[in-house]
Amino acid sequence: MAIATRSLGADLRRLLPPHQVFDGIEDRTLYAYDGTSLKALPDAIAQVRSAAEVAAVLRFASDHAVPVVPRGAGTGLSGGSVPAQGGIALVLAGMRSIKEIDTSSMMAVVEPGVITGVFQKTVEEAGLFYPPDPASLNYCTLGGNIAENAGGPHGVKYGVTKDYVLGLEVVVPSGDVLRLGGKQIKNVTGYNLVQLFVGSEGTLGVITEATLRLLPRPPAKKTMLAIFDRLDDAATAVAGIMAGGVTPATLEIMDQKSINCVEDYLKLGLPRDAEAILLIEVDGMPAAVEAEAEVIDRICREKGVRSFQTAKDTKEEDALWKARRSISPAISAARPSKIGEDISVPRSAIPAMVREIQRIAKEYDLPIVIFGHAGDGNLHPNILTDRRDHKEMERVERAIAAIFEASVKLGGTLSGEHGIGLSKQSYMGLAVSNQTVKLMADIKRALDPKNILNPGKIWRA
Amino acid sequence: MAIATRSLGADLRRLLPPHQVFDGIEDRTLYAYDGTSLKALPDAIAQVRSAAEVAAVLRFASDHAVPVVPRGAGTGLSGGSVPAQGGIALVLAGMRSIKEIDTSSMMAVVEPGVITGVFQKTVEEAGLFYPPDPASLNYCTLGGNIAENAGGPHGVKYGVTKDYVLGLEVVVPSGDVLRLGGKQIKNVTGYNLVQLFVGSEGTLGVITEATLRLLPRPPAKKTMLAIFDRLDDAATAVAGIMAGGVTPATLEIMDQKSINCVEDYLKLGLPRDAEAILLIEVDGMPAAVEAEAEVIDRICREKGVRSFQTAKDTKEEDALWKARRSISPAISAARPSKIGEDISVPRSAIPAMVREIQRIAKEYDLPIVIFGHAGDGNLHPNILTDRRDHKEMERVERAIAAIFEASVKLGGTLSGEHGIGLSKQSYMGLAVSNQTVKLMADIKRALDPKNILNPGKIWRA
Repeated sequence: MAIATRSLGADLRRLLPPHQVFDGIEDRTLYAYDGTSLKALPDAIAQVRSAAEVAAVLRFASDHAVPVVPRGAGTGLSGGSVPAQGGIALVLAGMRSIKEIDTSSMMAVVEPGVITGVFQKTVEEAGLFYPPDPASLNYCTLGGNIAENAGGPHGVKYGVTKDYVLGLEVVVPSGDVLRLGGKQIKNVTGYNLVQLFVGSEGTLGVITEATLRLLPRPPAKKTMLAIFDRLDDAATAVAGIMAGGVTPATLEIMDQKSINCVEDYLKLGLPRDAEAILLIEVDGMPAAVEAEAEVIDRICREKGVRSFQTAKDTKEEDALWKARRSISPAISAARPSKIGEDISVPRSAIPAMVREIQRIAKEYDLPIVIFGHAGDGNLHPNILTDRRDHKEMERVERAIAAIFEASVKLGGTLSGEHGIGLSKQSYMGLAVSNQTVKLMADIKRALDPKNILNPGKIWRA
Repeated sequence: MAIATRSLGADLRRLLPPHQVFDGIEDRTLYAYDGTSLKALPDAIAQVRSAAEVAAVLRFASDHAVPVVPRGAGTGLSGGSVPAQGGIALVLAGMRSIKEIDTSSMMAVVEPGVITGVFQKTVEEAGLFYPPDPASLNYCTLGGNIAENAGGPHGVKYGVTKDYVLGLEVVVPSGDVLRLGGKQIKNVTGYNLVQLFVGSEGTLGVITEATLRLLPRPPAKKTMLAIFDRLDDAATAVAGIMAGGVTPATLEIMDQKSINCVEDYLKLGLPRDAEAILLIEVDGMPAAVEAEAEVIDRICREKGVRSFQTAKDTKEEDALWKARRSISPAISAARPSKIGEDISVPRSAIPAMVREIQRIAKEYDLPIVIFGHAGDGNLHPNILTDRRDHKEMERVERAIAAIFEASVKLGGTLSGEHGIGLSKQSYMGLAVSNQTVKLMADIKRALDPKNILNPGKIWRA
């Protein structure tokens, strides 16, 4: 680093209102984390309020070769916002204005620090719908969702964050403020730079505004819970539902270990001997919702469902969702640590992948709970462990590698919606060739020649 | 160019089976065109059959600094495949194998030369659906669709080509063959390189294989035609339909001039005094289709529709589509030349944009026919003219610039689905800042340092 880090706070206070800069050890500690267990201290924290302030910080950082790590709410699950090489934690959480909800074009213009759940409620009040629904939606920010291309249960029908980002204001390392795309649904005016920045994990530019596409709010929905004796029957039912012309709004799966973990935790009366539960939601026009629910009911029965429930009202809906929503607290209660993965396989590979994970659990003698988004092939195997037990953690590391290898062998990849960040970068070679990584590095160098933006992420230099 | 172009054919015959190389003037003339009136002779034509052959040509071209212009069926509408700087026309139309239709994961793996319409019929026979539907679908290739990010009427509900491309095999200028993405619906393993290549107009790499997402084939559909006395009422109906929670599969608009052109040509009995016709299709589950058609009928009546027809069977459907499908031949018959544009504005700006175009038509004394995809804001103003009349062509050029300026002023852009290529590059500055163009050029340089791939396209150097 070209400047002494001890003067960094003082330098930043000359660029920004001084009350937006912090460099005490307590503050630095607060910004060392994300949603993983990874940590690394930043040298200073800069809370920014505008693209102009971001530009000032980036120009300074470029001049002095100081790392800048953009950060929303720090709920990420791959270490993306952990300041691995120190430098400046650039906090965008304060930029939380919903600048516009354009109901006639069904578009919104937002700042990056808007909380995803707050945004969803606001657009709902306008009769509109923003589908991306990461589990952290009550805490995470839209900017972070865009930087990591966050997903969620709605992915199967509605896609993920990238499918809603039509425009971005991005500050690049030179300090230039670029406005890319906009309120046009179709746009082929040169390279799709918007989608290059989406999911680039803060390594190419800092998002200071986004134009997001909205949908009409579906007038009706219906929630169903299907319990299967056999995992294969559940998987065949998933394939049958999709092939039947029905695309559910969510199609979630819980394996037997998830069921038992939740049952240990909450005593909901779930059947401990069932191999799988599907939680299915359909939405749309009332008549369509009725018709789709009937098709799903019929297919589940044809595929040998043990029991099939349909919620009659929102209270019953909440009851059906309770098991799925309780998985995370349930597994957190089961053992001292959990390590959540995020593989994504072709939809047809789900039963094979679940069996592979079960085999790996046995081989490495580790409890692995499997749940996730059966409709789009995105599974979250969670290893229950104890980080203080170094011997067990060695087995955990080997099990994670085995899971990734199995995913890639089945035509899948390392991450469906969490990103690579720090936590998966040593596995990149399994899914992405050296030549492709080199191409990513070439693009990074073209956009960020001094390598100041979130250095050391995604791939190993 | 470092080598004499007269030896290029001989050089290529050493790299490829000699019968795949052409350099006679008749052949060169055949490959000088695309779907515009632009033309430029290639020095030689290389028909390729595999990624290995593409790699051999690109390595040779890199070594000798020869331009390479990839080409599918040459139906593009912006000069993208016109060999503006000569060199090699790289013809991928012969790579037309549908390698796999994976019904259980709902994915297909295709070579770039597969005709879009042939692909659509093949997946339909498997009970599946590939929505992108450019007007040229019976001739154009999937590779060309991907390179230009082609759209079509289905865009409003189903998105465009980019929304279906999950994986690509791409040969980059070094001759490296990269495999990017795959059958994973969710994938955040590093930068979204797939979407960087989609729509890059052959300037970054040559697509030799694509993995395309498919949907279940909608079991039912319904086609409706709504005639409006006033354009504003039609536009309000479009907004009302979308806000009512119905997303039609297509939502096409024809203005009064389109109606009259078609009526002159075919005498279908269309009302010459109507300001707009909407052609609307809904698809999905039978019950949903019924319910959605009722909502559309109701909203059109509320907004003062003059007449509203629903097709009872496929024969009536074809009759309703006849007017829309006849616009291109009708306007081609009306005057010696037509110049079709492809602006994309926020949906709510459609009535204002149509009025702006009508004003421009009057100001420059030119007949301009307007039709397009009202549901997603993508309009095709077509100027009827005579290219031999140089004085009129000057007015045409000024009218085109005025249309682009109006589009950008209304929050729109230069191209929704045709690309920039050669024909719109002098207007790039209206929609895209110099700094953004510089960033595109930086990326181009990182991927293609010798500037061999389709040089001189999208922006002016």
